[in-house]
Order: sequence, then C-alpha cells, then structure tokens
Amino acid sequence: MAALLEAAADPDYGATIVAVGSDREAAGLVRAQEAGVPTFIVPFSEYSDRSEWNRVLAARLAEFSPDLVVSAGFMRILGREVLQENTVINTHPALLPAFPGAHAVRDALDYGVKVTGATVHFVDEGVDTGPVIEQAVVRVEEGDDVATLHERIKTVERRMLVDVVGRLARHGWTLNDRQVKLGGAPSRDVTEENR
Amino acid sequence: MAALLEAAADPDYGATIVAVGSDREAAGLVRAQEAGVPTFIVPFSEYSDRSEWNRVLAARLAEFSPDLVVSAGFMRILGREVLQENTVINTHPALLPAFPGAHAVRDALDYGVKVTGATVHFVDEGVDTGPVIEQAVVRVEEGDDVATLHERIKTVERRMLVDVVGRLARHGWTLNDRQVKLGGAPSRDVTEENR
Repeated sequence: MAALLEAAADPDYGATIVAVGSDREAAGLVRAQEAGVPTFIVPFSEYSDRSEWNRVLAARLAEFSPDLVVSAGFMRILGREVLQENTVINTHPALLPAFPGAHAVRDALDYGVKVTGATVHFVDEGVDTGPVIEQAVVRVEEGDDVATLHERIKTVERRMLVDVVGRLARHGWTLNDRQVKLGGAPSRDVTEENR
Repeated sequence: MAALLEAAADPDYGATIVAVGSDREAAGLVRAQEAGVPTFIVPFSEYSDRSEWNRVLAARLAEFSPDLVVSAGFMRILGREVLQENTVINTHPALLPAFPGAHAVRDALDYGVKVTGATVHFVDEGVDTGPVIEQAVVRVEEGDDVATLHERIKTVERRMLVDVVGRLARHGWTLNDRQVKLGGAPSRDVTEENR
C-alpha cells in the first residue's frame, strides 16, 4: 500500500489513489492520510452479518468510483456485493494455484518446493482462485524459514503489484475465460527475481 | 534419456547408465543399444495384474543393482514392489504441487498461469506427490499453446534432469521429511530459464 502511494505520487504512473479503506485501524490509513488521500473504515464487528458488511463496504467504495480496488494485506473474503460492482485485485505469496489460503509460505516450505513466488490475480468469490494477472518467482534457499522466505517474497510482490497496477491503469487489460492479457511490457526486474 | 546417455559418456559426470528398461518397444531402447547399454522390456499386457508386473519389473531392475532409477517419460504408476527396493526419480512438466497428472501443460495454460516449469522429484506411491529435488521455471508467453510451451519446458526439464542425476551421483543427497538437500551447486543455467 505504501509502495502504491509512493508510485502514484508520480503523474507518469497513470494511477491515482482515490481512497484507502480498511476493516480496522491500520498503519496504512495513517500513511494515506499523510499523503492527503481520503480513508475510511468499515469495521466487520459492527454489522450483523457478512452480507450487510459487504453491502456497506460496496457503498463506501462506490462513493469514490474506483476503476480498480486493490486488496493489499486484506484478509477478509469479499462477497458478491463488492465483487459485482468492482474490479478487485489481490496479491498472494505463492505461485497459485499452488498453496492457496492463509499459510502459503509455510505450506510451500513444508512441501519442500525449490521455487515459489507471488501472484497478482483478479479476485473472485473463491479463496485465491481468480484469474492470474502476473506471477514472480522466488527461489527457496537452504536454511530459509517462513520469515526469511516471506521477506524475499514480499519484496517481489510489492514491486510486481506496483508494476501491474500501473500497467492496468495506463494500458488496460483483457480477460477471456481465465486468460489475462495486460497492456504494456513488464520491466524485467519485476517479473523475475534478480540473482 | 538420450541426454542422460550422452552426459554419462563423460567419465567426470559421475553416473553410469547400467541399463535402460521400458514397458514397450521405444526409441530410447534403440539409442541405449547403440550406446552399448543393456536394455530390457517388461510388457504390462503380459502379466495378470499390476502387482505381478511390478514384481517382475523389480526383479529385472535388481539384476542391475542400480543406485538410482530414472523414470523418463514412463507413464505407469510404480507399485511398492519397485519403490521399496529402488530410489526412483521422475520429471514432471509443471511446478509441483501445481498441475499434477498427465495433462500438466494443458492444465497450466487453461488455468492462465504466467509461470510454470518442471520438477524433478523422488517417486512415491502417489501421482506426482514425492519430495521435490529441483525445479526450473519457464514463463508462459503470449500466444503459447500446449506444443510451444511444452517444448520450452522439455528443454529445461532435460537439462535439469541431467544436472540433478550427476549431482546425486557425485555428491549424494539427504531427505528429511520432504526436504531434499542435494550435494554440489547447480549451474545457474540449469535452474532458471535464460531470457
């Protein structure tokens, strides 16, 4: 989120951040306020059920008419109330469809893979099942634990997200079945880990 | 298989091919014979059941006392009769655990992944579920179909298999739970696609 705010400060980036929302107080909201970006909170606990929470979230999003909603570190599953009205993208710290869910890095280490990475995808109603927009590779090194591996994944994940949001904003995209075509070319250092 | 025969012709490679077997007539057997390597066939159809076929295959393998059995393009599932007595490795044209089974390349394209690759793994009694030894990455390019993508995967798969078999033979390995540590260092061009 901070990386997106920073990138969007450059007019050539193509995307502007119209608002930052959360389901709770979060450091990202403070950062956004410091950058002069409107923020909002829709606390999950204040609503009687998931559907009502989703409707309120959809209404708050609608106020800002976003072209794109970026779910960054947002751990709640979004309902159709939000997804029908918005194009939502998310990042995941694994090469989907491998290791979906909340413990991707640990699961990858436990499986013993030699390469893993990060995925930017459109969000659908499943858990990490939406169409893949871009993926970046991270090699598992000897001696890696969840913390060291996740740190390297986060680095490429952030870089890839900033790159993808810019390309989506500047060049658009097409989606046929699950095949996503992005306009523009990625920079090489975004899509492959430098070694 | 041809690539392994070629590599093993160099004494520095560390591995020698003691025999090449198949469940049917195959081009690889002819190549092996030309290289002076013993060959054998254990035709599946000649045995009353899978278990008997596995016992006969295990007996034929035992004649050659292999340190390692490399399953290369061998599409039958090996039973415990073979696996208990032999260390078997296999290659798979995807980044396991993504896209196991017989249609890995097509499944990866259908899913819309942006990176896929190849895996060398120890064979257990599951389908493509054994511990991962090494993985190599291949990017999906715009316009790829199963044939073009599979061709690029095969290239890195072959290179990786030759590299891994040599390292297993020269330096050994350890296996703890699913964590495989190979002796020696991979050459960079083996473990990542050159772009």
